[in-house]
Amino acid sequence: MFLDALLECEFEGPIYLVNPRGGEIKGLKVYQRLEDIPHSIDYVISTVPAKASLELVEACAGKGVKAIHFCTAGFSETGEEEGARLEAHLVEMSRRKGIRIIGPNCLGIYCPEARLHFAREFPKESGWVGFISQSGGNARTLVSQARWRGARFSKAISYGNGCDLNESDFLDYLTADPKTKIIALYIEGVKNGRRFRDVLEKAAKEKVVILLKGGATEEGARAASGHTGALAGTDVVWNSLCKQLGIIRVDSMAELADVIITLSFMPLPRGRRVALVGAGGGNSVLIADEFVKRGLEVPHLPQEIINELREFTPAAGNILRNPIDYSQTMMEIEKMVRAAGIISGWKGVDFLIGFLNLVWPQPSFARQMDKLVAMILEKSTASSKPMALVLEPGILPEQAKQLFDLTQKCVDLGLAVYYSHASAAKAISLVLSHNEKHPVKGIK
Amino acid sequence: MFLDALLECEFEGPIYLVNPRGGEIKGLKVYQRLEDIPHSIDYVISTVPAKASLELVEACAGKGVKAIHFCTAGFSETGEEEGARLEAHLVEMSRRKGIRIIGPNCLGIYCPEARLHFAREFPKESGWVGFISQSGGNARTLVSQARWRGARFSKAISYGNGCDLNESDFLDYLTADPKTKIIALYIEGVKNGRRFRDVLEKAAKEKVVILLKGGATEEGARAASGHTGALAGTDVVWNSLCKQLGIIRVDSMAELADVIITLSFMPLPRGRRVALVGAGGGNSVLIADEFVKRGLEVPHLPQEIINELREFTPAAGNILRNPIDYSQTMMEIEKMVRAAGIISGWKGVDFLIGFLNLVWPQPSFARQMDKLVAMILEKSTASSKPMALVLEPGILPEQAKQLFDLTQKCVDLGLAVYYSHASAAKAISLVLSHNEKHPVKGIK
Repeated sequence: MFLDALLECEFEGPIYLVNPRGGEIKGLKVYQRLEDIPHSIDYVISTVPAKASLELVEACAGKGVKAIHFCTAGFSETGEEEGARLEAHLVEMSRRKGIRIIGPNCLGIYCPEARLHFAREFPKESGWVGFISQSGGNARTLVSQARWRGARFSKAISYGNGCDLNESDFLDYLTADPKTKIIALYIEGVKNGRRFRDVLEKAAKEKVVILLKGGATEEGARAASGHTGALAGTDVVWNSLCKQLGIIRVDSMAELADVIITLSFMPLPRGRRVALVGAGGGNSVLIADEFVKRGLEVPHLPQEIINELREFTPAAGNILRNPIDYSQTMMEIEKMVRAAGIISGWKGVDFLIGFLNLVWPQPSFARQMDKLVAMILEKSTASSKPMALVLEPGILPEQAKQLFDLTQKCVDLGLAVYYSHASAAKAISLVLSHNEKHPVKGIK
Repeated sequence: MFLDALLECEFEGPIYLVNPRGGEIKGLKVYQRLEDIPHSIDYVISTVPAKASLELVEACAGKGVKAIHFCTAGFSETGEEEGARLEAHLVEMSRRKGIRIIGPNCLGIYCPEARLHFAREFPKESGWVGFISQSGGNARTLVSQARWRGARFSKAISYGNGCDLNESDFLDYLTADPKTKIIALYIEGVKNGRRFRDVLEKAAKEKVVILLKGGATEEGARAASGHTGALAGTDVVWNSLCKQLGIIRVDSMAELADVIITLSFMPLPRGRRVALVGAGGGNSVLIADEFVKRGLEVPHLPQEIINELREFTPAAGNILRNPIDYSQTMMEIEKMVRAAGIISGWKGVDFLIGFLNLVWPQPSFARQMDKLVAMILEKSTASSKPMALVLEPGILPEQAKQLFDLTQKCVDLGLAVYYSHASAAKAISLVLSHNEKHPVKGIK
């Protein structure tokens, strides 16, 4: 996995492989011992068994290694005494040898600028999101999935048990990193509460920080201790910490992605009043509920705007209130764009959400959809009203394909795309609430 | 759309098409006037403009028509006086002529047994779910999407403005219908509160009733009035009604599908204690949180069970607590099945949830996955512990394809499949809570 990722991203430095069996893998010589490598080494990625880890540190010390990323598991996270003891020895020995450790029990570092990847599907381009994740799986999921909605990362760090370098070290680093504008955290527990609070406070003053806390419940905390040996702390403490310091706290990986996309691609609306424009009658009723439940406002279109729309929009099958269900006239692009212009020009509204259920579109519909979206976006931009899109996915593979293709076109236009109304509403509401106390600047 | 659906489902009676232009469509003669049809007619599907609706009723009366489904919109839902007046005339005239009306402003009736479909992608097989939906789009979405998770319908009725036959009539009908075991409702507002309460009470005594109320907020209610001319009523009234009568109330279309799938395919667990078994470390921490937050219990595996598992399961990369993250050993099918047997045999647990993130599986992994699931299901069935599966989807088309294929194999095994932990937890918790007061019988 690591070798594939490094070859795929065209890592520029030399790569040495080590395995007692020797031979060759993908055209690269495999050294039987680390000591056999005829050069000094900067960085080691280790998948040796836990019991061989001390020996590896010893060998690395002789080669000038500065840091080892131990993917290797089987330490304190096992909950067994032996693993904990081994981890303590590992820390003690590496400190003595002047080697820093990332992990153990993690996927390590993704830094596209340095062409250091840990999954072959990661994007090569850098972005402004820095992600610190105690879980490798969560790091991989976020990077590899949010990329299709336009997110790019400065760094993503999976640090597992964090026996040496821990969450506070990485957070400190990203706070100072000029390439990072948004810091996302997936944390199960912290090593040193006092220090973490200090670096978190500093981070939140300089950048937007989003936190997903794993182990929010007692049972989740127990799972966290089994996963990375972390002490999770009580949920109430985390909540007040976030409130105090101005951290956006999210409840799931999906929400984490949604908030990153909102911050990255949706210019901040001036207020909470949304115009919901799209296709689907029953849908539009439920959408209004979803947005209002999450603290946004869906103001009634005033009669003069309705009259203006009615001049060229048939009443049957369209609903000219708010949400505006334009189902019957949607593909008459000229009318739709004109309607969007009128709605986004209305001073009673702060931003626009387009909605479309991709469960049963016509092929011709999907073909023209990106043109339509681009023209509406132009109108909303002209009125300085931010706009985003909710595309509801279907289960069928061809529906998923259509969703994916349309998403890519919208991402090319610089639009935030969400996959449910609830998630759009929650993410936008979180960002607006955050901004009321801690004005967000300079992302989009 | 209607003709395509009727041809696709092989409607058995004769189909007559009527349009002033005449000619032929898909090999069927088009009559220029309804009166020209040389036979009597049972049922009419109308897409004539609203202003031609009265004339149509007149013509139908001469042909012995019993019911007209008006897909036609442009009546009271427009909020305009003219539309409301026209609807009142329509009701008045059809009553006088002894014709019942479904709609207007709706997709009408899906009854697979009678081969009457309103969307070409609907399944031909009948099932035990009856769906009454004020929205045609929501009806179509539920039937065409939930089918891929195994749901089949006795009837699905989209009734729109419900100017003649309304929600109470259809509910009354499904309550008496021996083919219907579960009644799902999407309702924006009711015509006659007193009568609706009475039929709902009767329905809830005989069957499991699930309600999604559109227009739960003030703004949603306004949208509802624009959609179907419905008066939504306050949310608090609906909540206490559901509580009083034993109705499962859901908050979204996705939840409605999840509860239907739970009732249909998950034998009722004896309690709330779940064992979560699957792949993913960070994931498993968040999963525990999701289940606990929604009122389920995730009890710690006792030491003797852990010891039993440890006999053949390596500690590194697997987490033997609960959730049980079996990532590293998952594809050693024999071990995995043995572990599932031990876990489901443990008396401290009431049901099993398997979890798998499909964001980055290996192709070989997916190929064997259905075999593995089948063998685990056997173990859990042997221990009388219900089991379900959470498959987390990815954005990429090939991931969606993999998810779809695996879902179909699991549905063939009779398993409930969910697409997020939150949705599995919420649906199962809703069904358990319902069952505590109103024991569910005879579905699975």
